[in-house]
Amino acid sequence: SSSADEIKLDGNPMKYMTDTYGVFWIPMRAIEEDHPENPMRIRMAVWVKNLQDHIVKTLETIESSHISSNSNIPPGKFLRDAWLRPEGGEGSSCVLSNGRVFEKAGVNVSVVHGMLPPTGQKSMLPDHPSLKPKDYSVPFFATGLSIVIHPINPHVPTVHLNYRYFEISDPENPSKPVSWWFGGGSDLTPCYLVEEDCKHFHQVLKDACDEHHKGFWKKYKKWCDEYFYVKHRGESRGIGGIFFDDLTDVSEEHGQSKNKEELFDFVKSASSAFLPAYVPIVLKNKDRKWTEEEKRWQQLRRGRYVEFNLVYDRGTKFGLATPGARVESILMSLPETARWEYMSDMGKEGTEEGKLMEVLRHPREWV
Amino acid sequence: SSSADEIKLDGNPMKYMTDTYGVFWIPMRAIEEDHPENPMRIRMAVWVKNLQDHIVKTLETIESSHISSNSNIPPGKFLRDAWLRPEGGEGSSCVLSNGRVFEKAGVNVSVVHGMLPPTGQKSMLPDHPSLKPKDYSVPFFATGLSIVIHPINPHVPTVHLNYRYFEISDPENPSKPVSWWFGGGSDLTPCYLVEEDCKHFHQVLKDACDEHHKGFWKKYKKWCDEYFYVKHRGESRGIGGIFFDDLTDVSEEHGQSKNKEELFDFVKSASSAFLPAYVPIVLKNKDRKWTEEEKRWQQLRRGRYVEFNLVYDRGTKFGLATPGARVESILMSLPETARWEYMSDMGKEGTEEGKLMEVLRHPREWV
Repeated sequence: SSSADEIKLDGNPMKYMTDTYGVFWIPMRAIEEDHPENPMRIRMAVWVKNLQDHIVKTLETIESSHISSNSNIPPGKFLRDAWLRPEGGEGSSCVLSNGRVFEKAGVNVSVVHGMLPPTGQKSMLPDHPSLKPKDYSVPFFATGLSIVIHPINPHVPTVHLNYRYFEISDPENPSKPVSWWFGGGSDLTPCYLVEEDCKHFHQVLKDACDEHHKGFWKKYKKWCDEYFYVKHRGESRGIGGIFFDDLTDVSEEHGQSKNKEELFDFVKSASSAFLPAYVPIVLKNKDRKWTEEEKRWQQLRRGRYVEFNLVYDRGTKFGLATPGARVESILMSLPETARWEYMSDMGKEGTEEGKLMEVLRHPREWV
Repeated sequence: SSSADEIKLDGNPMKYMTDTYGVFWIPMRAIEEDHPENPMRIRMAVWVKNLQDHIVKTLETIESSHISSNSNIPPGKFLRDAWLRPEGGEGSSCVLSNGRVFEKAGVNVSVVHGMLPPTGQKSMLPDHPSLKPKDYSVPFFATGLSIVIHPINPHVPTVHLNYRYFEISDPENPSKPVSWWFGGGSDLTPCYLVEEDCKHFHQVLKDACDEHHKGFWKKYKKWCDEYFYVKHRGESRGIGGIFFDDLTDVSEEHGQSKNKEELFDFVKSASSAFLPAYVPIVLKNKDRKWTEEEKRWQQLRRGRYVEFNLVYDRGTKFGLATPGARVESILMSLPETARWEYMSDMGKEGTEEGKLMEVLRHPREWV
C-alpha cells in the first residue's frame, strides 16, 4: 500500500528508491536544508530534526508496506510528542510500539541549553580533555538525535544511533562558543549472525567515513567495540559499528585536523549512512520465520541490552542523573520486553546462538 | 501432597505449622546451630547457610502443595549450585525457575574472603564511617544471604531479603577483626495493594525489631524507604520493610549501644522474621485469578525493579564491578521477564494500579 508519492519531504523524487524486494524506502541525504551563515547550534539542530523526520517516515513506510501474517495488526505509526524542558530547551520524541515489523522504535531529538556549574564541567573532563573548566557556571548548548529500534522478528537486528553537538560559551558572550565538539555513531545488535549483513552494515559506515578521512573508520570502529562492551558479561553488546566523541577542530588523526565545516560534513555523511546501512538488512530478513526458541533467545539478548544501557551507557546514566530530565525519552532505548534466565542453556558452542556469542566475545574486523 | 514429615531439618516437629488454608509451612527460627565460642564469621556463615536451606525447603513445600490450574506444570524445584571463588571463598546459589507459584526465586549464600586494597577501603568509607582505612591491603571477610522471589501471580508480591556480616582484620593477626558490622533487611514489592498484607509484613518485622531495641524499627523502616527509592522515577521500588547497614558495637541509638552478641541476636530475629512476614501473603493470594491487563502491569512493575537493581542497588553495582564475581548469582535478582512501554497508560489515578502508585510516591507508616 505504500508508494513513493506518499512521502513528500521536499518534493525531490530522486530521493526515493526501490529496494531489490520491490519495497520503497528512502536512502541517505534525503533532506539538506542548511545555511552556512547560521551558527552551528542552529545548523546541527535543523539537521537532526530533518533527519528524525526522514527516518520516522522511512520506518513508517516499511511498516505500511509489510504484509503481516497476522492481519489484525495495523501498520505501526509513530507517536510524535514534543516537549519543553523547563530549565531551557525542547525536544521531540517519536516512538512506535507494537507494529508489524518493529516492536519498539524510538527516534528522539533534543535541543537543550542552560548553565553548566563548575562540578558539571569537571565531570565532563575525562571524556573531553579539550574542555577548560572554569570556577563559575558557563552557558552550554547540546543537540542530538538518538535512535533505538527493536524489531519483532529475532532475525532482524536491533540498531542504535546517536549523533550530537555540544558547545560551551563564555558568559560574557554566550553566542560565541569557546569549546565545542561532535560525538556519535551507530551500531548493530543481532540475535543471529548473518555474516553478509554484518559486512554490509560496516561497509556502508566505512564508506561514509572514508569520504572524509582515511583514519576515521579504523579508529571509530575500534572505539565502538570498546564502548559497547558489557564488562561483567565479558561480551560486546552487538557486532559494533562506529563511535566517536569529543571530535573538534584541534582533534588530530595522523597529524591532520579538520575544521568545523569539514567535521559537520562528516557528521552529516555518517548519520545519513544510517538508513542505507540498516534498512536493507530489515527488508532482507523481516519475512523470515522464527521458532519459539529463537524468540526466547531474542528475549535473553534483550536482557543483555538492558544491562548495558542501565549499567554502562554514558548518555543514560547522565540523563537519569540530570534533574528535570525526561525519563520516558531517556529510557525509550529499552526494549518492550526482556528476559533473564539463571544459567541459561542457550548460546552454547556449536549452535546458531553460540555462533553469535563467539563474535560477541571476539569482535571481528568485518571489512 | 506435602506434609510436615517430608521436611526433616533437625527433627523438631514444633517447627512446622499449618496455615489457615491447611498448607504446611515452616515458621521462623527453624534451626539454630550456634556455638558462641566460635568466631562470628563462622557463626554468621552457619546461620545464613541454615536459613538458606530452611527457606529453600519452605518455598518448595509451597510449590508442591499448590494445586495448579495447569496440571502440566510440575512443582518448582530449586537448582542448587555450589561455587568456589578463585580469589578466596565459596557460595551456594539456589534458584527456582518457572514453578507453579514462583516465576523465579533465588536464595543465595556467599562466604568470601581476601585482601582489600587501600582504594577498596576508601570506597567503603561513605557507608561505613567506623572503618579506619590503611595505606596497605588488609584481610577482609564477608558472608551473607540474599533472596529475591518473583511470583507468577500479579497479586502475589515480589520480596527481597539481604543479611550480611563484614569484617576487616589486621594483616598481622587475621583472625581478630579490627572492624566489623552487620547489615541487611527485607522489603516487599507488590503490583497491587492489599492494605492488610502491607500491615502484616511491616508488623512482623517491627515485632522482630522491637524485641531487641525500641529505636530499631522506626529508624530502619525509614532507611529502607530512602534506600529503595528509584530517584529518576520519583517513586519507591515497593512498600518498604527494614534496611540497616554498618551496625556495630559503637553504633548508638538514643545513646544506647549493643554488644556483638546482642546484635547477632537481632540479625537472627530479623532474618527469621522473613518467612512469617512473607509466606502468609503468598498463601492468601496465590489462588486469585488475574487478567491479561494485570499481568501487563506486573511486567511493567518488573521493569522498574530491573531499573532499581541495575542503576542504584549497591550490592549489584559492587558485585558487577568486582573482578571474578559470579555474575549469574548477582543477577539472579532480576525477574524472568520485564516490560517497558513508552508513556504507558497504566497506573493512572482512580485505578487499582494508580492506588499502588500513590503509595510508591508517598510511603506510608503502615503500623
